[in-house]
Amino acid sequence: MTETVITSEKRKVIIGFEHKFVMIGERINPTGRKLLAEEMARGDYSRVVADAIAQFEAGAQMLDVNAGIPLADEPRILAECVKLVQETVPLPLSIDSSIVAALEAGLAAYKGKALVNSVTGEEERLEVVLPLVKKYGAAVVAISNDESGISEDPDVRYAVAKKIVERAADFGIPREDIVVDPLVMPVGAINDAGRKLIYLLRRLREELKVNTTCGASNFSFGLPNRRGLNASFLPMMIGAGMTSAIMNPLHAEDMQAILGADVVMGNDPNCMAWIKKFREPAPEGAAGAAGEGGRRGGRESRRRASV
Amino acid sequence: MTETVITSEKRKVIIGFEHKFVMIGERINPTGRKLLAEEMARGDYSRVVADAIAQFEAGAQMLDVNAGIPLADEPRILAECVKLVQETVPLPLSIDSSIVAALEAGLAAYKGKALVNSVTGEEERLEVVLPLVKKYGAAVVAISNDESGISEDPDVRYAVAKKIVERAADFGIPREDIVVDPLVMPVGAINDAGRKLIYLLRRLREELKVNTTCGASNFSFGLPNRRGLNASFLPMMIGAGMTSAIMNPLHAEDMQAILGADVVMGNDPNCMAWIKKFREPAPEGAAGAAGEGGRRGGRESRRRASV
Repeated sequence: MTETVITSEKRKVIIGFEHKFVMIGERINPTGRKLLAEEMARGDYSRVVADAIAQFEAGAQMLDVNAGIPLADEPRILAECVKLVQETVPLPLSIDSSIVAALEAGLAAYKGKALVNSVTGEEERLEVVLPLVKKYGAAVVAISNDESGISEDPDVRYAVAKKIVERAADFGIPREDIVVDPLVMPVGAINDAGRKLIYLLRRLREELKVNTTCGASNFSFGLPNRRGLNASFLPMMIGAGMTSAIMNPLHAEDMQAILGADVVMGNDPNCMAWIKKFREPAPEGAAGAAGEGGRRGGRESRRRASV
Repeated sequence: MTETVITSEKRKVIIGFEHKFVMIGERINPTGRKLLAEEMARGDYSRVVADAIAQFEAGAQMLDVNAGIPLADEPRILAECVKLVQETVPLPLSIDSSIVAALEAGLAAYKGKALVNSVTGEEERLEVVLPLVKKYGAAVVAISNDESGISEDPDVRYAVAKKIVERAADFGIPREDIVVDPLVMPVGAINDAGRKLIYLLRRLREELKVNTTCGASNFSFGLPNRRGLNASFLPMMIGAGMTSAIMNPLHAEDMQAILGADVVMGNDPNCMAWIKKFREPAPEGAAGAAGEGGRRGGRESRRRASV
């Protein structure tokens, strides 16, 4: 099975079909966060540090770091943030920019094997990003659009992903270091966005045999109760083959949905992570008793048990 | 696409891949409900009526009716309950018993095309239940176990389901009137229960081309936060091909998970059911404005929008 390994100095994260779903914290990103953008631009990274700690404590296995601030010195800021975040939390990072010089500065500052976010199927991007990925021995998020834009046809998106995998191979980057982002569209605008994504994820998993990631929250854009909808969307994508997401680990509903999906996929051995998270406090004198039923697991259950 | 039609005098419910997921309310069942069992045994059906109304109002599209009380006159009680529930709510019913005389009494009392719950792959059951299903022009839940018990091998369960479909055809019952229950096992006892079920549901959908149902709550048996786990489990099963479940519609988390899954599957046109359920109240003078974003859907969204 395809395993994408991302490392920091202290940790190794494996993205793969037989592993727990990898949550990549999305918070360190000034896009749409005016205050954070202003602070980062003037070199105040206190909120970056706080966001790193909060996401780490919430259970993110990796963090995305983005410093995309208009008119700012993005390469310098991104490199400084990468360094600071690595000093703050032990998690491997995704280095996120649309500016190649910023990606390079971030990679130069990074200790370990990073995830580069991202390359598209556009020739001009492939030519500059892939050599960088190779040079630093990184993995890369491959977004399934190209010069012609984002196709609504999942077979076209599959073809773009396949092209990126092939081009990466030409540069000496193996398939397991490509994490395809199939592009999540808002279902409020495109009613069959979810159905097509399930189809595409299965093809990516079964035929192209690559790991996948996405910006999950985009799916519910414009709809009420976005958290609730994401909590259905994420497990369904995981069931179809998605192995990571760039998301907000501070959202308890998303987090619960993903831990539940790990159980359903058989990737939470003996349901230990689920039990640890949700076990009720044991009464005094009975420490460790709560939740044991699930761990032992041998009890008879009746069909359609009432709960 | 395979469509299973179930009717009452007033309503038609279609179970199918291109339709909203069908929630079959499980509450009218004395198993494990001592008070209800005592009341039903002495002919007090007030709680049956209350359960019917509550599940109808919660959004169940069908109701399961079971009168399995030890030492009681189950055929008479089941027939009386079927009649009473049909007088109370407009929903089609699933007539649920392991006693053939009770199934027949329930079917005789029923107005419309019922769902018989259930037949297994055991020869002795096939021989008595299938003629009854044919006689009353009903549909039937086919449980994928046989004389050898419940296999942990999903391919064996598939073979049992296939056998039932073939035997039903011999009795003149078409494939679309067989709703296969692949049998949900507790993941606390069998760690790959979910993964195997996804595999089996895909085979049932893509190869045998049948609709499916299950007693969903069994999956989380013995684990903490069962509601939360079911809320991941149900959407993943729907994504894999499950088209109905026998469940408790009064559980808000399950209900939300299913409405969300309908959106993801593209079976909630324009997300209308989701928007109707979760739309925030419009401020005065702006009636109808809330949620319109989703309905119009044309707005630009940025990728990985922060919410």
